Amino acid sequence: MKEFDLIAAIRQMTTTLPANGFEGIGDDCAVLPLGEEALVFTTDALMEGVHFLRHTTSAYDLGHKALAVNLSDVAAMGVTPVAVLLSLSLTAKATERWAHDFMEGFTDLARQHGVALIGGDTTRSEGGISIAVTAIGRGALRDLKRRKDAREGDLILVSAPLGGSAHGLQQLMEGIEEGHCVEAHRRPQPEIEAGCWLGKREEVHAMMDLSDGIHSDLRHIVEASGMDAEVDVARIPVAEGATRDEAIVGGEEYKLLLTADGASAEALCRAFTEQFGRPLYPIGRITNASESPSIAWFDGGEPFNCTKKGFEHFSE
Amino acid sequence: MKEFDLIAAIRQMTTTLPANGFEGIGDDCAVLPLGEEALVFTTDALMEGVHFLRHTTSAYDLGHKALAVNLSDVAAMGVTPVAVLLSLSLTAKATERWAHDFMEGFTDLARQHGVALIGGDTTRSEGGISIAVTAIGRGALRDLKRRKDAREGDLILVSAPLGGSAHGLQQLMEGIEEGHCVEAHRRPQPEIEAGCWLGKREEVHAMMDLSDGIHSDLRHIVEASGMDAEVDVARIPVAEGATRDEAIVGGEEYKLLLTADGASAEALCRAFTEQFGRPLYPIGRITNASESPSIAWFDGGEPFNCTKKGFEHFSE
Repeated sequence: MKEFDLIAAIRQMTTTLPANGFEGIGDDCAVLPLGEEALVFTTDALMEGVHFLRHTTSAYDLGHKALAVNLSDVAAMGVTPVAVLLSLSLTAKATERWAHDFMEGFTDLARQHGVALIGGDTTRSEGGISIAVTAIGRGALRDLKRRKDAREGDLILVSAPLGGSAHGLQQLMEGIEEGHCVEAHRRPQPEIEAGCWLGKREEVHAMMDLSDGIHSDLRHIVEASGMDAEVDVARIPVAEGATRDEAIVGGEEYKLLLTADGASAEALCRAFTEQFGRPLYPIGRITNASESPSIAWFDGGEPFNCTKKGFEHFSE
Repeated sequence: MKEFDLIAAIRQMTTTLPANGFEGIGDDCAVLPLGEEALVFTTDALMEGVHFLRHTTSAYDLGHKALAVNLSDVAAMGVTPVAVLLSLSLTAKATERWAHDFMEGFTDLARQHGVALIGGDTTRSEGGISIAVTAIGRGALRDLKRRKDAREGDLILVSAPLGGSAHGLQQLMEGIEEGHCVEAHRRPQPEIEAGCWLGKREEVHAMMDLSDGIHSDLRHIVEASGMDAEVDVARIPVAEGATRDEAIVGGEEYKLLLTADGASAEALCRAFTEQFGRPLYPIGRITNASESPSIAWFDGGEPFNCTKKGFEHFSE
């Protein structure tokens, strides 16, 4: 069974459940509006042998990553991550040292972004190590950015050069254990400050984080928004050392993908650079409303055959 | 490493993190006060081979149980569970049928208690099946019941006869697959309505759910409250078919353990019976404040040597 089939089946089964004031199924986070405020919620699991191998991922890096991927989902909604809950299931082989290093990676990143650890569960595992994190964000309801809000004429932008994580993974498999791409893969830096800052910009319409690769993730925005889009792959910024293919289909970037009003995008890019000392990268445009949304890929004006698929956890 | 050592180590490491307005570490749930309201949060993991065996636990029962244990934690705080997030990691051997049955058990219980499924993550697992649920509750801040609020002179009460789940597990291991004890183990019914009702009673001071056994769980209340207590094991209600030992140390009951003002407890018990058609059971008393809280166990007036330990997930 493919992951997306299972998710679809689960959604179907849960249509008869109440919403209790929550919204946002299909976004990076679920949303609970509370007057002018909102809380957002997301959960992600990391499984040994699927998302990481213990002999290639240090406990510290894994603690960092388990938190980073969840904070990234919150920041991609345009609000501030405030708290997390952690379920940690350890095999008998995972030593006290391993658990300590994992928690150090986890809490170092939590401290860096001012996130509280408010609860958790620790259990033994007979299989591999299993980690599940739930993150909670809090912000103004009007700042929330959703996938469905891309509009005709929006520019499509990314917040950083891409492909570094995928290239780092490739290097690790080849035995190369140092360099900024390896670092990008081992300790992804989620765009917390940038996400919150972009949340406050009205000209930003849709936003999400890049976890499965731009090729796969942009589809979520166009499908949720009911829009066609075109992307010029020549404009996708490629991380130093990475290939263009890695930048297009590589996952686990945890950078931001957003759309912004076409007329205001230039001013947005200038303000972003003033704020963060680095650019936003326009890579394409939302062209028109569509009942069967699709993305046209170009390479410097020439149609580009972009067949590779983003990563899915279940294989057919 | 023992589970409780790991939790202590984690708490130590997280003392340098901010609280961001959350409170309640040490309770069944973390609490986020929002004016006169509060949200509460809890997470629990179920691991194949540790918490369940696939050949003795049906997918439907497991879906039920994964949700039940989390709803129980919320109700034990005295507030209503409103939403859950689910992380489900499946082995390649877990079929579409298995996933469907699991979700059916999960959503049937969610529907019964009006709980929303607001998000989740589905991944593949190379080890066993792994399930993590985060539950969110919502209620009035003044209704919240915590472990630390037991007072001198409080009666200690439980909400139902105990030991049924432990006896059911024993029966299952002996090949007996039917009966109300087996049912209590397979499909525990969390005390949602009773917990919310008790939350609104001012004379109820401390409350928690019975997950590790009364012998172990009552220690949490006396230690958090800084109180000594005495319990008459002859007054602990024993589920039909179960033994007294099973009622004292058996876990996975998901019934309520509470303390209530001694002068008002009789009226509370009457009102509870009127509301639910079944009694609350006084089993002991909070005797005095103490710097080294302990529980004195009696059996009909005679001191009782209660040496058995509650279940801990890590073995030494």
